Amino acid sequence: MIFASDNWAGAHPDIARSLVDAAGGFAPAYGTSDLDKRVEKTFSEIFERDVAVFFVGTGTAANSLALASFNRPGGQVFCHREAHVNVDECNAPEFFATGSKLAPIDGPAGKFSPEALAAAIGRFPPDFVHGGQPMAVTITQATEAGTAYTLDEIAALSAVAKEAGLPLHMDGARFANALVHLGATPADMTWKRGVDILSFGGTKNGCWCAEALVLFDPSKARQMHYLRKRSAQLFSKSRFIAAQFDAYFRDGLWLDLARHSNAMASRLAEGFAASGKARLAWPTGSNELFAILPDAALKALREKGATFYDWHPGPDLQATMQDDETLIRLVTSFATTQADVDAFLSAL
Amino acid sequence: MIFASDNWAGAHPDIARSLVDAAGGFAPAYGTSDLDKRVEKTFSEIFERDVAVFFVGTGTAANSLALASFNRPGGQVFCHREAHVNVDECNAPEFFATGSKLAPIDGPAGKFSPEALAAAIGRFPPDFVHGGQPMAVTITQATEAGTAYTLDEIAALSAVAKEAGLPLHMDGARFANALVHLGATPADMTWKRGVDILSFGGTKNGCWCAEALVLFDPSKARQMHYLRKRSAQLFSKSRFIAAQFDAYFRDGLWLDLARHSNAMASRLAEGFAASGKARLAWPTGSNELFAILPDAALKALREKGATFYDWHPGPDLQATMQDDETLIRLVTSFATTQADVDAFLSAL
Amino acid sequence: MIFASDNWAGAHPDIARSLVDAAGGFAPAYGTSDLDKRVEKTFSEIFERDVAVFFVGTGTAANSLALASFNRPGGQVFCHREAHVNVDECNAPEFFATGSKLAPIDGPAGKFSPEALAAAIGRFPPDFVHGGQPMAVTITQATEAGTAYTLDEIAALSAVAKEAGLPLHMDGARFANALVHLGATPADMTWKRGVDILSFGGTKNGCWCAEALVLFDPSKARQMHYLRKRSAQLFSKSRFIAAQFDAYFRDGLWLDLARHSNAMASRLAEGFAASGKARLAWPTGSNELFAILPDAALKALREKGATFYDWHPGPDLQATMQDDETLIRLVTSFATTQADVDAFLSAL
Amino acid sequence: MIFASDNWAGAHPDIARSLVDAAGGFAPAYGTSDLDKRVEKTFSEIFERDVAVFFVGTGTAANSLALASFNRPGGQVFCHREAHVNVDECNAPEFFATGSKLAPIDGPAGKFSPEALAAAIGRFPPDFVHGGQPMAVTITQATEAGTAYTLDEIAALSAVAKEAGLPLHMDGARFANALVHLGATPADMTWKRGVDILSFGGTKNGCWCAEALVLFDPSKARQMHYLRKRSAQLFSKSRFIAAQFDAYFRDGLWLDLARHSNAMASRLAEGFAASGKARLAWPTGSNELFAILPDAALKALREKGATFYDWHPGPDLQATMQDDETLIRLVTSFATTQADVDAFLSAL
Repeated sequence: MIFASDNWAGAHPDIARSLVDAAGGFAPAYGTSDLDKRVEKTFSEIFERDVAVFFVGTGTAANSLALASFNRPGGQVFCHREAHVNVDECNAPEFFATGSKLAPIDGPAGKFSPEALAAAIGRFPPDFVHGGQPMAVTITQATEAGTAYTLDEIAALSAVAKEAGLPLHMDGARFANALVHLGATPADMTWKRGVDILSFGGTKNGCWCAEALVLFDPSKARQMHYLRKRSAQLFSKSRFIAAQFDAYFRDGLWLDLARHSNAMASRLAEGFAASGKARLAWPTGSNELFAILPDAALKALREKGATFYDWHPGPDLQATMQDDETLIRLVTSFATTQADVDAFLSAL
Repeated sequence: MIFASDNWAGAHPDIARSLVDAAGGFAPAYGTSDLDKRVEKTFSEIFERDVAVFFVGTGTAANSLALASFNRPGGQVFCHREAHVNVDECNAPEFFATGSKLAPIDGPAGKFSPEALAAAIGRFPPDFVHGGQPMAVTITQATEAGTAYTLDEIAALSAVAKEAGLPLHMDGARFANALVHLGATPADMTWKRGVDILSFGGTKNGCWCAEALVLFDPSKARQMHYLRKRSAQLFSKSRFIAAQFDAYFRDGLWLDLARHSNAMASRLAEGFAASGKARLAWPTGSNELFAILPDAALKALREKGATFYDWHPGPDLQATMQDDETLIRLVTSFATTQADVDAFLSAL
Repeated sequence: MIFASDNWAGAHPDIARSLVDAAGGFAPAYGTSDLDKRVEKTFSEIFERDVAVFFVGTGTAANSLALASFNRPGGQVFCHREAHVNVDECNAPEFFATGSKLAPIDGPAGKFSPEALAAAIGRFPPDFVHGGQPMAVTITQATEAGTAYTLDEIAALSAVAKEAGLPLHMDGARFANALVHLGATPADMTWKRGVDILSFGGTKNGCWCAEALVLFDPSKARQMHYLRKRSAQLFSKSRFIAAQFDAYFRDGLWLDLARHSNAMASRLAEGFAASGKARLAWPTGSNELFAILPDAALKALREKGATFYDWHPGPDLQATMQDDETLIRLVTSFATTQADVDAFLSAL
Repeated sequence: MIFASDNWAGAHPDIARSLVDAAGGFAPAYGTSDLDKRVEKTFSEIFERDVAVFFVGTGTAANSLALASFNRPGGQVFCHREAHVNVDECNAPEFFATGSKLAPIDGPAGKFSPEALAAAIGRFPPDFVHGGQPMAVTITQATEAGTAYTLDEIAALSAVAKEAGLPLHMDGARFANALVHLGATPADMTWKRGVDILSFGGTKNGCWCAEALVLFDPSKARQMHYLRKRSAQLFSKSRFIAAQFDAYFRDGLWLDLARHSNAMASRLAEGFAASGKARLAWPTGSNELFAILPDAALKALREKGATFYDWHPGPDLQATMQDDETLIRLVTSFATTQADVDAFLSAL
């Protein structure tokens, strides 16, 4: 009954085995091996256009490098107030993009609106040097709240960003989960809706350690080689990441894993609704769900061995909650079994 | 006949398999799993004292974090001119330790002397604010030149550093190779000789991706947790590094692998001497050797399929070389076979 | 009728003349001249204890260096949302303290409460590495809203900071204005209430360019020498700043100038009240006042030659305003005349 | 007999008085006043083309901002080993251009040759990501050794920089001294010889505090506004710098002052030659001279009240010196009198 995080799971057996298969022999280092190149090509196929791909070690690295590639003096990055980049990366984005700043935007269920984005950008009029200057917009898909932006919502945010001359970054730590939820193609959810650069996460969805930065305009990739090396993210045996992605993409494994974890989250959600003891904070659009439960119920669940985290409710949500209620987050993964879910629901 | 780099090899089968064995089940993330903790304890046993251990993804990350932990405004880090931190890390050390600078020191065969270190430090008199201030000393063991500092040499450098109030960092990307060459214990070669912090490399010696920062004074570890996270080096599934070290240390595998690659380098060295066609730039003290050969011989070797890099000779060495000679570097690894070596020597 | 900013005024004649008087002769550079030392001593007298003083060129430099001296990886600086450091310094604080972040706190009339501070700090539990770690608290006195914290309010904020082990910085760009408003001594308003470091501004109150960083614990001054030089704020002919402060402090000139500009602001405030055409956003506690006026009145004033800025009302204030009303800021200075004020009021 | 530094002098009376004249009245802040604009225009006249001008507080700020405007990840700045940016700015250049590095080049008498520059650049082959990438070239005119590059030498260095696609920065802390020494026009010595950006110093030549960054391609000025503000170098009462330059340029005062201090240095040089007790390290090309004297003579001079600094001789010079000889630096200024010089020579 472990619903603490999708990164508590290990690696899918196929992915771990791929590391054994690739272990023998010699190959050029630092991302120049045949395997690296082949897997990079797979990214271009999946995204239906030529993309530049950079393997890195963590999602924080991918996000921070993406934003650093747009750095300007006094730069302001527009993000959701509860975005991972803003609250869970120990200032790595500000460190990688020295002297930049995150300008947080509020919005319900982990999303912000085009109007809120336009208003936030409007606080930085051109040539008012004191306030700094807009630099980039970043959204998370699926969001930190387990929801997913619709394709139209992404396009609308992108339009505001483009109007202001700003690039759009997508933090896709749970990219696959949002993708299968929407039933969209990778191209649909990214460059066809105006996304310029993507943090493509594999780790939370069954890899050991496989993250990639995807640039939809490969002509802008030159400086990223130096940025990545300078931040100590260029792996000598880079093919150990390539080997993971190789298995991840084979026969659509990555989509199957995401479908499974989403299904487990939906099953949980349905069980909650049926129980009458919990209510969802908002509909789930991935493998995370947020629910409000009586403290007594939570205590009982934990005593029975369930693992999950309490979460900060925003002011809006808090207004709907009783004093003896708590917001919790549950995360499912490729390794979550139906038995686990049912055990949890029956414990509830 | 691949002698380009030890990072062209993949992973030792035991180490790759360890990733399969650890893949199942759930475990707390971000370095808090039982496996992480157990392997951290192994480090303390190996070094015969309580140490603080931080797993990171690359040697560049380990080096840069070590130096960043000593950062001061105007800080000067004393290193060998050809040190990896100075010439092969794309300014990562300067980036991680913002506003610091490497002060390079010359010396033959990849080493610098205590006198040279003292002279370099002397260029920064206390309270002369314009020049900046000394901040740390870093040495590489084995060195970039394939040699190894003796235990006495380390102690002498450490004494100069301590006299100036400076911490001593050791870049141990090829720690095991130097260790078995000297026949020393890990404690002998580090804290017993005044080393304060160590970049402990596993990747070049048979791991996929396993590097660790070892702090010999665990009471100074608190800020390193934040430094590591801020630089995007805290892995969610950190146990994939722990699992590699687990196999690496089991039954002394790491020492066996290093002994093997050193033996292959020695065999090469002996073959060179016997051939009469090459001379060593200096004696080898690890798994790298540097040799001077006629260009015609190099051309012939490459035509027969041998892989290795040309290298920059320093001014001293250059003075001993003919116009039609080149300095080359050959690196052996755990995966280098005796047959490979013999094929190379016979090709020579 | 210029009420745009106190930095639109030039320099008080005594202060400008002091630069002529000091121009002759030779003196050691970089802050070591007799004049530098004498003026530093004056600071200690004014603050009734030994202080370390660092002359710098701008208020932004003073603030940014103060915060940089407390930098930690993942560091969070608690400040008011509308603080100068947060909205008017083009990310200089984040740049000087690389990788740090400002954590903004809301509160009416430019102040935040001890409770709000405690809640903000509480979002960063010890050892939760992902969110970063608290690093410092900064308040502005007088505030950006023209108000002044009372001595008790400062003490209460300081108590919360100390409880969390955090240093307290005061941005005193308008230090003198708040001081004479409260009728307090410099010691009262700073270290006796727990302030650790002060940006002491002279420029807005009649100097050409004279700012000082005051450390109430001189034993912590050593690294500031390097921080200042590294940020290009160590002036070779530093005595040109000392000469300004010399005249500034002579015979209490600085307090007289502040009393005058405060009096001009009060006269404006009284005139507004009497006019029936404007209401103050909040009581003034320095030389700035914020008032809400009908747009038609503002248009008329500007046509008659009055200069002042529109200002962003916070959400609370906005709720009290009509659609055809605007919040404006008026700032008086040592050079503002009673005739100017009366002309403005009569134009109104 | 003060020859310690040209920054031991105060300010020329005309320049100090200009600050009194400008003190009255109100004017827009942050560099937008009529006076600021008028003086900026003077720069364009002096340089015979449209230039963008940024007033800053120190030469270190000007140099560091210039280099920061070219920053790239892994960036290498080529400079002379003894350049002010490399040895006297407490790492400010590395701090402003985060993650960059100075690549020092050797050469006699404070200059480096086009061949040495080309060789240094050649150490960073395109796309070898490990070593970083070339970013800029910086020269000092007059040099730290008191010499001046000829116009042809500047053009030759510029040609090498341009060939490598690199911008050329000139540190002109003693710009006027080199200019009158060469008898060149400002345009001749800068953009007509390929200089892209100039640190134009006024402080060492009679101003209190007046430095300017001059961009010969004003279309590249936009980001510099933000860079300057972010580094706390945008002065609110910026016209106090403009007022100094206004007097500095009036009726060619700046050139007269430089001619005077150069003449004093020449008189010293001639006296040295005539004395038979000292030899010049190299010919002087500005207001600095470097001489080798017996230690006994130096002791006697200091006892008679002369002030000057000992200096580090480079290895070449050291080889020509006896054990009981020392290299010293003497600097003259606008305020140095002929009587001072003669007193020194007669003391010698």
